[in-house]
Amino acid sequence: MKAKVFVTLKRGVLDPQGKAIAHALNSLGFPEVVDARQGKVIELDLGDAGGDQAQSRLDAMCQKLLANTVIEDYRVELAG
Amino acid sequence: MKAKVFVTLKRGVLDPQGKAIAHALNSLGFPEVVDARQGKVIELDLGDAGGDQAQSRLDAMCQKLLANTVIEDYRVELAG
Repeated sequence: MKAKVFVTLKRGVLDPQGKAIAHALNSLGFPEVVDARQGKVIELDLGDAGGDQAQSRLDAMCQKLLANTVIEDYRVELAG
Repeated sequence: MKAKVFVTLKRGVLDPQGKAIAHALNSLGFPEVVDARQGKVIELDLGDAGGDQAQSRLDAMCQKLLANTVIEDYRVELAG
């Protein structure tokens, strides 16, 4: 089973890296870019681990390691 | 219009950060994690930019700045 975890900064948390991307895109001839925010995707290979427990196990992984829940939101997507 | 760009390392490219995540998860009591790979999500706010051209403009952004196409793949997702 594979899973994807998307970790993004919470709304309202300053994102200098995103600002830099938006600024660079503007300079490169893309004035339509108003704002950009950067997050992480973590693709996990869970081997033969069962589907029922997977969601709660992934939640635990996010809480413990993958996301800093003070400033970041996360979303888990299970795929086959 | 908003868009999300997903940038991931190509298959076969070494991902030490992903390896570190997998190792850390194993140590934290998640032995089911066989492998992990880390990528980026970039959320772009494109203001009122039109939908027809948006896809090709986003492709150009990825080629020019957002992805290193030698070692990275990218995928663009348009949303409203």
